[in-house]
Amino acid sequence: VSVMQTGFAFLEAGSVRSKNTTNIIMKNVLDLFIGAIMYFAIGYSFAYGKPGNAFIGHNYFFATNMDENFTYAGWFFQYVFAATASTIVSGAMAERTEFTTYMVYFTFLTGFVYPVVAHWCWSESPCVLFKLQKYILVKPHGLSYIDYAGSGVVHLTGGSAALVGAIALGPRIGRFKPDGTVNDLPGHTVTVAALGGFILFVGFMAFNGGSQLSISNPGDGNVVALSVMNTVLGGASGAIVAMLVYKTTDAIRGEDHYWSLLITINGGLAGMVSMCAGCNDMLPWAAVVIGTIAGLAFMGWHHLMLFCKIDDPLDAVAVHLGGGLAGVLLAPIFVMKGLTSPETQQHVGGIIYGGNYLAFQSFGWNLLGAVAIIGWTVAISTLLFGSMKLLGVLRVSEADELRGLDEIKHGEPAYPIKSYSDQ
Amino acid sequence: VSVMQTGFAFLEAGSVRSKNTTNIIMKNVLDLFIGAIMYFAIGYSFAYGKPGNAFIGHNYFFATNMDENFTYAGWFFQYVFAATASTIVSGAMAERTEFTTYMVYFTFLTGFVYPVVAHWCWSESPCVLFKLQKYILVKPHGLSYIDYAGSGVVHLTGGSAALVGAIALGPRIGRFKPDGTVNDLPGHTVTVAALGGFILFVGFMAFNGGSQLSISNPGDGNVVALSVMNTVLGGASGAIVAMLVYKTTDAIRGEDHYWSLLITINGGLAGMVSMCAGCNDMLPWAAVVIGTIAGLAFMGWHHLMLFCKIDDPLDAVAVHLGGGLAGVLLAPIFVMKGLTSPETQQHVGGIIYGGNYLAFQSFGWNLLGAVAIIGWTVAISTLLFGSMKLLGVLRVSEADELRGLDEIKHGEPAYPIKSYSDQ
Amino acid sequence: VSVMQTGFAFLEAGSVRSKNTTNIIMKNVLDLFIGAIMYFAIGYSFAYGKPGNAFIGHNYFFATNMDENFTYAGWFFQYVFAATASTIVSGAMAERTEFTTYMVYFTFLTGFVYPVVAHWCWSESPCVLFKLQKYILVKPHGLSYIDYAGSGVVHLTGGSAALVGAIALGPRIGRFKPDGTVNDLPGHTVTVAALGGFILFVGFMAFNGGSQLSISNPGDGNVVALSVMNTVLGGASGAIVAMLVYKTTDAIRGEDHYWSLLITINGGLAGMVSMCAGCNDMLPWAAVVIGTIAGLAFMGWHHLMLFCKIDDPLDAVAVHLGGGLAGVLLAPIFVMKGLTSPETQQHVGGIIYGGNYLAFQSFGWNLLGAVAIIGWTVAISTLLFGSMKLLGVLRVSEADELRGLDEIKHGEPAYPIKSYSDQ
Repeated sequence: VSVMQTGFAFLEAGSVRSKNTTNIIMKNVLDLFIGAIMYFAIGYSFAYGKPGNAFIGHNYFFATNMDENFTYAGWFFQYVFAATASTIVSGAMAERTEFTTYMVYFTFLTGFVYPVVAHWCWSESPCVLFKLQKYILVKPHGLSYIDYAGSGVVHLTGGSAALVGAIALGPRIGRFKPDGTVNDLPGHTVTVAALGGFILFVGFMAFNGGSQLSISNPGDGNVVALSVMNTVLGGASGAIVAMLVYKTTDAIRGEDHYWSLLITINGGLAGMVSMCAGCNDMLPWAAVVIGTIAGLAFMGWHHLMLFCKIDDPLDAVAVHLGGGLAGVLLAPIFVMKGLTSPETQQHVGGIIYGGNYLAFQSFGWNLLGAVAIIGWTVAISTLLFGSMKLLGVLRVSEADELRGLDEIKHGEPAYPIKSYSDQ
Repeated sequence: VSVMQTGFAFLEAGSVRSKNTTNIIMKNVLDLFIGAIMYFAIGYSFAYGKPGNAFIGHNYFFATNMDENFTYAGWFFQYVFAATASTIVSGAMAERTEFTTYMVYFTFLTGFVYPVVAHWCWSESPCVLFKLQKYILVKPHGLSYIDYAGSGVVHLTGGSAALVGAIALGPRIGRFKPDGTVNDLPGHTVTVAALGGFILFVGFMAFNGGSQLSISNPGDGNVVALSVMNTVLGGASGAIVAMLVYKTTDAIRGEDHYWSLLITINGGLAGMVSMCAGCNDMLPWAAVVIGTIAGLAFMGWHHLMLFCKIDDPLDAVAVHLGGGLAGVLLAPIFVMKGLTSPETQQHVGGIIYGGNYLAFQSFGWNLLGAVAIIGWTVAISTLLFGSMKLLGVLRVSEADELRGLDEIKHGEPAYPIKSYSDQ
Repeated sequence: VSVMQTGFAFLEAGSVRSKNTTNIIMKNVLDLFIGAIMYFAIGYSFAYGKPGNAFIGHNYFFATNMDENFTYAGWFFQYVFAATASTIVSGAMAERTEFTTYMVYFTFLTGFVYPVVAHWCWSESPCVLFKLQKYILVKPHGLSYIDYAGSGVVHLTGGSAALVGAIALGPRIGRFKPDGTVNDLPGHTVTVAALGGFILFVGFMAFNGGSQLSISNPGDGNVVALSVMNTVLGGASGAIVAMLVYKTTDAIRGEDHYWSLLITINGGLAGMVSMCAGCNDMLPWAAVVIGTIAGLAFMGWHHLMLFCKIDDPLDAVAVHLGGGLAGVLLAPIFVMKGLTSPETQQHVGGIIYGGNYLAFQSFGWNLLGAVAIIGWTVAISTLLFGSMKLLGVLRVSEADELRGLDEIKHGEPAYPIKSYSDQ
């Protein structure tokens, strides 16, 4: 499942200029490895440590003191989720972030920000959301926040932090012309970016299928297959819609209009992100509808970011915040009660299939979840990136940015000229 | 299992010139996504819809009206098969096909041509082949067309359509010199092509292993392992034979003779394609024999295509039609009765192990299947590509072909010069 | 699981100069395919053929004469191990080995050298090590050499042969300056090398998880998950330690000091290699400790190789011999008795958790195993590569080495200039 990380690494590597390639790959390698150490040391403990309070868990530090609630498989899945959430940020902050600063903020995101979100939304401890439940609503039939594989917990968290990071950093030199128009700074190789995209498509299918954790219970195979089918259909809808919107809006404006590969890939990713919330309990037609909306949301966020002059080299915010938010809000509308397995029958049907009082409450919980995730992540990220900016350690110097980070920080240009001579 | 699509994408990307890289990757992305939508909407219905008639199925349109014969896992596997079959075509038609025309023919292939073949050969409905059975032969012990993972249904279908497409398009500009000799137009990166090849090798092992669908039945593990072992051995034989034939024929002719990587990879793919038909029910030595024959068949088709001045940039016809035909015709010779699981005991032994009247009948059914698949696919493809050619929409203009499709159609050159400056 | 081979192929491809890219990929393709044929023909028979003697097995040649001890899954896993062990060698001998000579030595390694090691260490036949046991020690509770997924059998074997090969070949032209200092000959693309590294990370998780062979026994899921978690943590520790050591030692020396991506990746690989021996039966904190030591061992071997003027373009010796030796020697110190499944309860606890007479004996067996593996492999490799060197067939001519092997041997430059024109 660390296939996801490989996908992100090469989507990002292909989408930056050649002078920053080693840098962005290095960050992805460290995401995998610093993430593992942090999640081993404190991350899993904060998220799932039992006992825990409404805000945070506290047990299993350094994988010690384990009891029957700690499973190795559970740790691994959660670690992958945590690394994914934090990786999203490196894309939006590519080509201009100080390397040591990156290591500090990444450590903080994986070790603290994400685990708290996971604790609130996924742990069995009486968490903040459940506590609220007592006061605001009668707790009906175990009703709670619906997010099967992390549209909210993973992608909305990552996307929100990415947005704050990109704003705090400011755009790359030359990204916006003095007259305010956008200057294209294309990545150095579409081939490698597309490779990353394909790996992510495969990864999402495995991720959303694998979120069932144990494949050995009877009936699980069916949930896995439904999740995978819905993930494919959601991605397909998002990709095709984004491709068509991009082509036709430019045509309507009278500009050159193209079939853009990168827009198509990102639209597909947004569609798959939106599937994470409810793909396990939803009919295929609903996946097509949600994927379509996610594709439109992606295009909307894409243009909004450019309009606001926020520079996100990977469109990470549009894909993960856009797609993730769509997923969290739409899942409670379209889910069916107990479509594939008894386990999911605790969910009330969504607004369309359930249609009753409980279904609207369920939507309310997901809305509250989204607000809580965005609020928490934006607040902490603003503190984090803001103080780094004030300290002057967030962004590399102008000279370094122009020359590229690979030679200066890593001593390893991605394509050393001398290794191509005598060819 | 959509690993296969990733493999095709990069095998093709590395095998075209840099000016058409984005274009070919875009086609592979859409294969994945348009394929999903088409297979959701009508493809699966035509193939497996129950009730169906002898020609086509008709139920489950848009995944509605599902009963216990519809499984999500079944849909997913069939969708992957369908996308694979249709993807083969894009390789043979690379670097010169009009993009919108591609979208139309791909939609048609995935939504109609392939599903009909799957209905005939794999659905349980009384299909054309079974109907014929009533009149021609007494139906013995459930005897029918043997094709475990699609040497015929997938690869022969794709290879036949690819052949017709390549003929209809005509060769790329400059592919054949005025004096009739071949002009090499190498792909722009062996590294990426080989990456695709490796991914496909991995994909075939997963594909042929995974075709058992459910791994949870007792005895299934053994079928999976045997299928994988045979796939590896078939690929190995095909690769080594193709490599040696290429090296030695050039040496005998007195020309420069090389250890060609691309020929070796394609030989390996042809060997694996030939394994799809019977790898689940065949001793390993038989896999070596069939793989060897498939490697020779690949080399034969490779030279035949050049001799006929048909331009197939990926050698897709030689690999898939050559390897697929070898697999369909050789499987009934080498299979054993019930080698690994009771389920396969319905197969009579092949000509070598069974050796009786039924075994020769079994061979007859596979021959008939191959003829039916080729006949149907060639007929429909000729209609399809022929009418597109008459309408003048099949091929891009000469100017566009010379300049390359990436900038003109997609606005995204694969390696933008400006992203390499200041390195 | 042949994912591993894909990883090696691209790690190596990116780490050589562009003029030798096709050559190194070709070797990796043949590793997969010649390996399959050799392991089918004789390799598995030598390793696991029953009956066998203390030195070697002899049955199942060409997968015939199979009984209930032969399983297809067992063959496949062993084949992957064999190909991995032999592939390590091609990295250390890159850019200067004669191609036909490579085919001969590879055949010999996969077909004979590795299988004998596997027979000694993993087969159930009374092997040399067990025979010795009778004379040296009373055989206590099935006590024997501990090596779950091949730190010793696979990586120490491969690393030892690689060391001998690199010494026999001598350094590449220009690798060491006349004054004895090191001249950097960087690989031609960090992107591709890193891709290989990522694929290997994924591969190790699958490899170490998958070594449990059958996932369907109760309790196996837990072993798999523990193995994967430990593999990740070991890799993470190795990577971070190697990165920091590289950065700080250069800083202390007053030289330019960098965050090296390639050192980080190789450190991570060394950490994962060291996990193979005992990751199934060890607490996570132990994985962190062993990974850290493996990272240090990698850096030590890295500098030792340069100090001895042995040229290993991939640092294969430092990763596999360094990491493998660390794994074999440290596993018996840190393992716990029966941590996850009854099956492993035959292991006595390691020195830390068991701490008794048996635990120290267990360490003795692993020490003996390491000595036996290194002794056997170095002796046979010296004979093999030494006689090839005397025959003058080991290394290509100076002219060929300068021009690069791709055009001369394969006729396929990796990036043909003419396929980039008109872009």
